Amino acid sequence: MTKLSTSPYKGTRDYYPEDLALRNYVFSKWREVCNSFGYEEYDASVLEPLELYASKTSEEIVSQQTFSFEDRGGRKVTLRPEMTPTVSRMVAARRQELGYPLRLFSIPNCFRYERMQRGRTREFWQLNVDLFGVAGIEGELEIAQVMDRTLKVFGATPDMYEIRVNSRKSLNAMIEAAKPKQDVNSVLRVVDAIDKLSTEEFALKLSEVLKDPKSLIEALKSNQPNEELETLIQKADKLGIKLKYSPELARGFDYYTDIVFEVFDKNPENNRSMFGGGRYDGLVKTFGAEAVPTIGFGMGDAPLYNFLEVNNLIPKVKLKTDVMLIPITEDDLENVNDVANQLRSEGKNVAIDYDITRKFDKRMKSAQKLKIPQIATIENGELKFKDLL
Amino acid sequence: MTKLSTSPYKGTRDYYPEDLALRNYVFSKWREVCNSFGYEEYDASVLEPLELYASKTSEEIVSQQTFSFEDRGGRKVTLRPEMTPTVSRMVAARRQELGYPLRLFSIPNCFRYERMQRGRTREFWQLNVDLFGVAGIEGELEIAQVMDRTLKVFGATPDMYEIRVNSRKSLNAMIEAAKPKQDVNSVLRVVDAIDKLSTEEFALKLSEVLKDPKSLIEALKSNQPNEELETLIQKADKLGIKLKYSPELARGFDYYTDIVFEVFDKNPENNRSMFGGGRYDGLVKTFGAEAVPTIGFGMGDAPLYNFLEVNNLIPKVKLKTDVMLIPITEDDLENVNDVANQLRSEGKNVAIDYDITRKFDKRMKSAQKLKIPQIATIENGELKFKDLL
Repeated sequence: MTKLSTSPYKGTRDYYPEDLALRNYVFSKWREVCNSFGYEEYDASVLEPLELYASKTSEEIVSQQTFSFEDRGGRKVTLRPEMTPTVSRMVAARRQELGYPLRLFSIPNCFRYERMQRGRTREFWQLNVDLFGVAGIEGELEIAQVMDRTLKVFGATPDMYEIRVNSRKSLNAMIEAAKPKQDVNSVLRVVDAIDKLSTEEFALKLSEVLKDPKSLIEALKSNQPNEELETLIQKADKLGIKLKYSPELARGFDYYTDIVFEVFDKNPENNRSMFGGGRYDGLVKTFGAEAVPTIGFGMGDAPLYNFLEVNNLIPKVKLKTDVMLIPITEDDLENVNDVANQLRSEGKNVAIDYDITRKFDKRMKSAQKLKIPQIATIENGELKFKDLL
Repeated sequence: MTKLSTSPYKGTRDYYPEDLALRNYVFSKWREVCNSFGYEEYDASVLEPLELYASKTSEEIVSQQTFSFEDRGGRKVTLRPEMTPTVSRMVAARRQELGYPLRLFSIPNCFRYERMQRGRTREFWQLNVDLFGVAGIEGELEIAQVMDRTLKVFGATPDMYEIRVNSRKSLNAMIEAAKPKQDVNSVLRVVDAIDKLSTEEFALKLSEVLKDPKSLIEALKSNQPNEELETLIQKADKLGIKLKYSPELARGFDYYTDIVFEVFDKNPENNRSMFGGGRYDGLVKTFGAEAVPTIGFGMGDAPLYNFLEVNNLIPKVKLKTDVMLIPITEDDLENVNDVANQLRSEGKNVAIDYDITRKFDKRMKSAQKLKIPQIATIENGELKFKDLL
């Protein structure tokens, strides 16, 4: 037989117990925050019909980045690149039976076939938080609080990040005034890239998509938040959350309809967008159900790990096993399950080393390799504990 | 825009909060049992290179039941139909760094493109428990205990199920003595189906694959467990676990090398195999790493739900939100976030109904629809709690 590769599939990673313990820690904190705001967890399959993403998710993602294939029954199917179309589908399916305001969250794995760079993976996990049935800015205010808590819960302080906010409606009006050559979305994508471009490059790119680029540059400089945004910023401030008005903020997805958020990492080593969200009132309606006002955000795990790392916020996570039981004699081996079960009934997580032929030193080293904090030897029926770490 | 379907992809299902609460309950019990025996959780991507399954997983699954496709880079990739090849790959990749005995478990979703029947799904979750580095029957004894606990932890009693055990080595020897016409595996598959066939059908099927089918039928009837099995059965009995010797038990996967287990549901409504496992010492070696003795089992979620249902063991699971806060006046709405945050700091999970224009009755009904057990009204600054359930 030829030797098989031990590598995971390209763009994915393995989670050995210590890796998974860290991921489980992050997920449990996310769950804690969502639950405290009254959000309930849902899930769906990673497989979705391809048509679910057409004309919703950004064009670039659908046509160039999906993992799509035809199944054995000829159906076109996709590994979800994001969760928003799925949750909209699920809410539409039970539009009448569900109670509102409806608060839902999920931590799905998503797939995007992106160029591999800077430790990027093609599979990632994403916290998705969505509030259905709140039309007013109370919804935005709540989502801003949840976004803020998802960082503070890990020990982050407000100086480490910045929550930016904008009105897509205001931005759209400014773009219309600057006479777009093609559709507004193509202009939005240029505006959204402002942070990555020099002033000259930005002006040049704008002149390709606008008849009057200067009017937009002027508007972005001089513009003030509209009344709704101003109210939101003030109310958030009273709750101890600083929102920064950013007139050029657009967010990638086409489905956002009004206020959008983006959270930036302020650490100089890692100065970039971490996650964001916004209002997308139109999605449930596309399934033929009555429209429902919706606002939400999605937060990938990789940017968060980076953020926690550069800010020294990753804790030492522990594994679950409490003690490795080491029988010494034949008789001790014969009784080891009874001893282990007694310790288990007292609430301890107990592993057993059955190999009494191995040298004691080697057995202890194995327990250390396994990161088990304590060993317990049984010698002639006598149980002795010893801390390893 | 044409109306999109709200159905999930064929063969998969949506998990609304109550569905997921039940799944999370089952998974948390599984984790509790595994941790108590010293097993640590791992995970890997649902995507694996197709070649990982060739000549490991059963031929039928690979050629007819995998969800396989070619990615945008021309790689052949599969949605995992089972977890055993993955965990073998992961152990092989770090064969030297890991400590032994190594105890690993995972609860992956797996995909098999099966004919749709009896509520079967093409995506399912499966508890996978594997013990690496124990060559003797102490390993079998431990795995039998873990299998037994995964049912008892849900309140099951020993009369509800039966743990069957066999030696693949003994069975193989019996088959060899009956002169197989083709390979042994094709005979194993017939033997494994004995429960689904009448005595005549079984004899007929055997005569198609054996030159001397009668010798096998005789051997299956009269055979006694070999010494190793006998010891295992006695030791398990002392720990309160009844193992039933079943000389015809084979298990579907080709990679089992010696003792195999199968757990049967004894309820007349649901009399069938629920899950099983066995020893498969050869898998890690196929990755070019030093061989490691291994024994494990896999337990799908669907058979367990059936088992719990017919035995009336499914508990009433609760959602996470404790209280729906209902502000009555404009001023109350203005202060609702402060009140909510105060309650949250006391450990309560608090949702808010912001719509003070709705009739109180409707707002209360929404909270009931959402299965929230308590409401709290704030009227002119006064907070009053009321139980709903």
